[in-house]
Order: sequence, then structure tokens, then C-alpha cells
Amino acid sequence: LSTAPAPITFLSDYGLADEYVGVCHGVIARRCPAARVIDITHGIPPQDVRAGAIVLRGALPHMPVGVHLAVVDPGVGTPRAAVALRTEQEGRLLVGPDNGLLMLAAESLGGVAEAVDIGASPERLASRSATFHGRDVFAAVAAALAAGEALARVGEALDPAALVALRLPEACVVDGSIRAHVLHRDGFGNLILDAAPAQLREIGIGDGGGLTIDTAGSQRHRAKYASAFAEVNPGALLVYEDSLGMVAVAVNRGSAAEVLGAARDDELALAPA
Amino acid sequence: LSTAPAPITFLSDYGLADEYVGVCHGVIARRCPAARVIDITHGIPPQDVRAGAIVLRGALPHMPVGVHLAVVDPGVGTPRAAVALRTEQEGRLLVGPDNGLLMLAAESLGGVAEAVDIGASPERLASRSATFHGRDVFAAVAAALAAGEALARVGEALDPAALVALRLPEACVVDGSIRAHVLHRDGFGNLILDAAPAQLREIGIGDGGGLTIDTAGSQRHRAKYASAFAEVNPGALLVYEDSLGMVAVAVNRGSAAEVLGAARDDELALAPA
Amino acid sequence: LSTAPAPITFLSDYGLADEYVGVCHGVIARRCPAARVIDITHGIPPQDVRAGAIVLRGALPHMPVGVHLAVVDPGVGTPRAAVALRTEQEGRLLVGPDNGLLMLAAESLGGVAEAVDIGASPERLASRSATFHGRDVFAAVAAALAAGEALARVGEALDPAALVALRLPEACVVDGSIRAHVLHRDGFGNLILDAAPAQLREIGIGDGGGLTIDTAGSQRHRAKYASAFAEVNPGALLVYEDSLGMVAVAVNRGSAAEVLGAARDDELALAPA
Repeated sequence: LSTAPAPITFLSDYGLADEYVGVCHGVIARRCPAARVIDITHGIPPQDVRAGAIVLRGALPHMPVGVHLAVVDPGVGTPRAAVALRTEQEGRLLVGPDNGLLMLAAESLGGVAEAVDIGASPERLASRSATFHGRDVFAAVAAALAAGEALARVGEALDPAALVALRLPEACVVDGSIRAHVLHRDGFGNLILDAAPAQLREIGIGDGGGLTIDTAGSQRHRAKYASAFAEVNPGALLVYEDSLGMVAVAVNRGSAAEVLGAARDDELALAPA
Repeated sequence: LSTAPAPITFLSDYGLADEYVGVCHGVIARRCPAARVIDITHGIPPQDVRAGAIVLRGALPHMPVGVHLAVVDPGVGTPRAAVALRTEQEGRLLVGPDNGLLMLAAESLGGVAEAVDIGASPERLASRSATFHGRDVFAAVAAALAAGEALARVGEALDPAALVALRLPEACVVDGSIRAHVLHRDGFGNLILDAAPAQLREIGIGDGGGLTIDTAGSQRHRAKYASAFAEVNPGALLVYEDSLGMVAVAVNRGSAAEVLGAARDDELALAPA
Repeated sequence: LSTAPAPITFLSDYGLADEYVGVCHGVIARRCPAARVIDITHGIPPQDVRAGAIVLRGALPHMPVGVHLAVVDPGVGTPRAAVALRTEQEGRLLVGPDNGLLMLAAESLGGVAEAVDIGASPERLASRSATFHGRDVFAAVAAALAAGEALARVGEALDPAALVALRLPEACVVDGSIRAHVLHRDGFGNLILDAAPAQLREIGIGDGGGLTIDTAGSQRHRAKYASAFAEVNPGALLVYEDSLGMVAVAVNRGSAAEVLGAARDDELALAPA
């Protein structure tokens, strides 16, 4: 009696200019030929663990339950652990470095039910290098899990409480204004903030309402709280709840990052206009 | 008695820097796990509906018959309709915004036999946002169709004659010269024109013949009507029938867009040298 | 009695901005619907046959045995042959232009057991153009092979000895220093050299040892022979054995190509510090 393997999703900062992603696909296909692999994205900014964690958390609800491979790993080759874990809710299996990358997704799924250290997994490749654990450790273990291996068989038991956590900055409301930070900019120049839609309501900004956005460089911009880009003119700023449910800033047919001159970690102050 | 799901092809302007394409793949895999998805390209210039329509029309003859998802959607969140349609010939199912994106392909397949408005489709996701209909409407409906749902079940019947058409500029022959326009430039800087190979013959340009190309900026360049890039020297211009059967301009081992300083919609005049 | 088709891997310099890769996938799916296609990469620098050959050779050991389609083809449309071949070891089937692209991989697999010229293959598409043999010849033939067609059925027998070879430059040791060349730079700016790890040992550089790197522009840089990027400070140079087993130069969290001002074919001299 055979079962279809679990689907695998794959997120990384490898980019597509090189063969790194393709080689991981090959490793998976050799270990578990029938596994389907869905590439979430490989365009995470290089070594930006936080961006990877945010994107992974937002994407998983739209992915079939399975094995979720994620590699953004500035510490490859250092003693940071390599881990695989099972989430409390849905029983998703997450595989990647122990640097917080997996933890926002895990927390949004009720936390970690079981974790193993896969740094010396019997599923590792013989070819293992010190620079490409995506191939030699993570993809190999993900494929084994998709093929049905038990978590306890691919690594050494690890206390979930010992996993490296990831803390995001949090926007706060001060004097009727939201002090927010840029968590991530996407490829279109949209800026994802740490503010919650509830905070906008708290300072009195409702659908269609006007805002000011003050940048760290003390420039003031006007924006509209809109639900669709086309509600503002081309070139104009809007604040919106993005497709992951986070507050974001965009420019219709343009780049908010360019218009605001803002980048990752910059502070923005939002207030009613 | 089960049948394999129809293959899905997917074209968009989402790019691959972000998770947007991957999330659509996830949505499809959740609704129709066995569907195969072929990415035609996600590199359509942002919001360039015409480029998307031209590429889709050219690619479909090389795609298996199935469900053809296409999203280039500057009007997302506005009242533009979301549609699914069946082509007269081959019975291909096309899914996307009602902005002309699907219509060149549909016309090349004998027109539209049946169309439905899927803006309120029962197949939409509950997560629906105003900015990401690719995920919430189009991918979800495409997956349902691939799984075998009837067109009439995924939306409200729509008069095919009411669909938004797309008109391309048309080159014309004036005084022995072709006044053509740049419809699209590809990633290598090749310029796809609205001229037909028959128009080249009409003004007396045969295989291997010499041409002049006058740009809007009144510069004159010399080119050769060739069938392969390597028929001209590196850096030299050639005019050729591209792999989609359209007249195009290229530079061997270079970029025609750069050499001619020409972009989308620019007029070029082609004449025998 | 049906067998699953062989997996197909696909490497090219087509990039992902256009539909070229997607159209090849479509051609494959039409001929062999059940074939799985693994994209190794489509980011080979345009027309850089040598870079394609190096990446293909390095990637194949991690790919399942099957049909290996590779297209980097500056001579498309010229009389260069189009070929399919079977390797002595593992019986992998390689498909691509006869310009050396396939030959490093073939040599690393014991050489070519059988080769055919597919330029007039009965499997070619009727649509054939002079500019897109990837679609019309190579993808079509690869799909036929994956579907189980014999090599002898898809082309005319060819003497393996007549295939175009590819010779790489070779680093040499002179006066205790390695004169190496940049074979390829990857998307992160890492420089892959023609030097062998054994040559580093020959001049007395061991793990963790210091080196000098002299560029063609007579600049001297200091580096460390390390096994992981994180063994040197951000911004610092390291020399390492890369994941393909080749000697490479990198900058931790930076670009060696930029720091050294070095590009493909440049000479670098490595010596103990």
C-alpha cells in the first residue's frame, strides 16, 4: 500500500541566477522522485532572515500541508543548528537553519510540537560542503520527510524551547500617531510595516481616510488608506492592508521605497491628515 | 473513475522576486493537488496588458490544451470584471481579468464560445483581498476548472461580445516604406514590431536583403533581413521573423533596444537599403 | 505495461524575463505529459558556453539519471550540429548544441557511448524557426527520449570522436604561486577558478591559512583559506573549495568580483601570505 509523498514547499535567498535552487530540486528528486515541489520564492533579500520569516509565515496558509523547506542562512558553516520541526496545528513539517527563520510560521501555527537537530542527520548527503547545507542537509532531509520518514528518524531530539526565536519590532501609538518600522520591501517597492490595521483604527483612520507619513528624514507625505491601488492616482501613495494582512505602503504604478526614500528598518510615523 | 486534471499554464507580471507566484501555485495545489502547472513567464513588464496578450497568444500553440491562467491586472480592485472563457477552437479555458489580456489568444483560437464572470465565483478564496485577485480569484478558479468543474459552475454567464477587446497598432506601407511600431521588447532587447513578414516582401525585401531602419529620433541604421542571428556580425542589426511569426529587430550578441534607442510604442520606418 | 517517463533536467541562458523557458516546458508537456522537468538554472550568462558546461558538470551528480537538456547556443542558425548523446557511466542522455556545452559533463561520466545528430530529427516541431532550436529541436527531442524513444530513433548516428570538445584553461604553479583564471562568476559575485584544491596544498596553503591574491591590475589582497564564509569577517576575502569541488574566491556578505575588480578570464595569482 503506497501513499503519495507529502508536497514540499521551498523558500530561499539563493536567487535564480545560479544553479543552487535547481540542485536542491535534484537532490529532492533523487531521494523522493514523486514529491511535488512548490517554490514559494527564492528572491528573499540575501541573508535577510527576518524577511524570509515574514514571507514564510504569510505564505504557509496558502500552501498544502506538507514539508516546508526554508533556507536563509548567513551562519552556514558556523555552529548554528540545523533543524526540522513539527507545528502544533496542522502538523506541518518545517526544515531549515535554527536562526529564527522558521519561528514566525511555527508560532502562527500554535508553536512547535516536536523538533530535531538534523546537523548530523543520517539523511545528509555524502557530498556535504561547509557552504551549501541547503543541498547537503536541508533539501536531503526535507525529501526524506516527504517520503514518509518520521521526524525522530532524521535527527536528534531537541527541546523546542531551545530553538532560536525571532522578535519583530512592534509599532506603537504615541500622541495619536503610529511609530512604525519597515519590516520588508517587496520587489515592487511596496513597504511592509510592523503596524496592525487595528492601530490605524485606533488613531482614527478609516477606509478611504487621509494620512500623513513622516519619514526619518523629516519629510511629510500625504497618503490615502485604500483597499486597492487603483483608488489613488498613478504616482500617489496609499496605505493598505496587504494580502498577508499586514499594513503596507505603496505607490500606484510606482515604488513607495523610492518615493519615501525608505528602506528596511526605517521608522515611519503615520497620523490622520 | 478518475481522470487526470487538465494542465494549467500560468503567465503574469508578478516577477519572481516575491512570493506572489509561489502563493498562486500553493492555492492551485490545495484545490487540485495533481494539477501540473507550467509557468509561461512571470516577467511581463508590470501592468503591460498588451505585452502579456502578445506573449500569451504566441505561447499557447506550444502548450498542452488545458486551463490558461493569465494575470496582468492594473485595474485590480476596480470594477473591471474577472472572467473565465472557453475558446471556439481546441476548447482551451482562459482565466484572467477582463482587460483584453486573454483576447488575442482567444481570437487566434476562433473566438470565445462561452464566458463567465468569476468576480463572485463560489470558488474564490475566503481570504480575498482587494490587491491580490491572482491568488484569491484567478488561481482558485483555474484550479477548480483543472479539477473538472464546468465553466458554468464557476461564474455567472456573460455575453462573449461584451468582453473588453484589445486592438494592436498596425504597421502600414507608405511610399515603399513600412511604418511600424514597437509592440514589445523582450529581455534581450529584441524589439517585436507590428509589421507582418508579408509587408517586408511587399516593399521588396527578401531573405538576406538589406534594409534601413529610421527611428523616431531621425537616426538611420542599416540592417539585414536574416533568419538567424549569426548571419550578421556581432553588434550588427538584423530584422527577422521571430519564433512567434512576428517581425522583430535584434542585434547579434547585443540589444536592439539600446542600439536604436527605441522602446515600446516607438515608430520605426523600414525600407529597402 | 507502462513505465514512468525519465525525468528531464533543463539548463539554459534564456533567463526568466521572457517566455522562452516556459514555451520549452510546454513543448515537453505536449510530447510527454507525465515527464517531470527540473530547471537547473536559466541564468547562465548569455552565450557563455563554458559557464554552462561547468555548471552542468557540477549539477548532474545531484540530478536523477534521465534526460539532460542544455541550451547555450550562440551558433543557432549556423551549421553547428544539434546532438543527443548517452554517457558511458550512468547512461545519462544529454541533448543540446554541439559546441562543447555537454562535453565536460560527458567526460566526467566516462565519455560518450553513443551520439546522434538531431538537426533533422523526426521529432522536431513543424514550427521550426532559425532562432529557437531550444523549442523546435532540443526540447522536442528531449521529450521524446524521456517518453522512451531510443537514441537511434531520434537522429542520425554520429562518431562520438567528432563532437566538439571544450578545453578549460588550467592553473599552473610557478615559483610557489598559483597562476589561476576566473572560469565563471556566480550571481553573488563569487569567482570560480581553474585551480585545484591540491594546488593550494602544493604551495603550502592549508585550512585556515593566509593567502595573497594578486590581480591582473597588480593589486594585492589578503584572504584566508576557509571552509565557511562566516570564518572571515563581513567584507573580508576567503578562498574556499566550493560546493562543486572547485577553488573559488568569495567575500563574506559581499562580492569578490567587485572587491577584486575581476571578471571572467582574468588571471589571479595566489600565494601563501
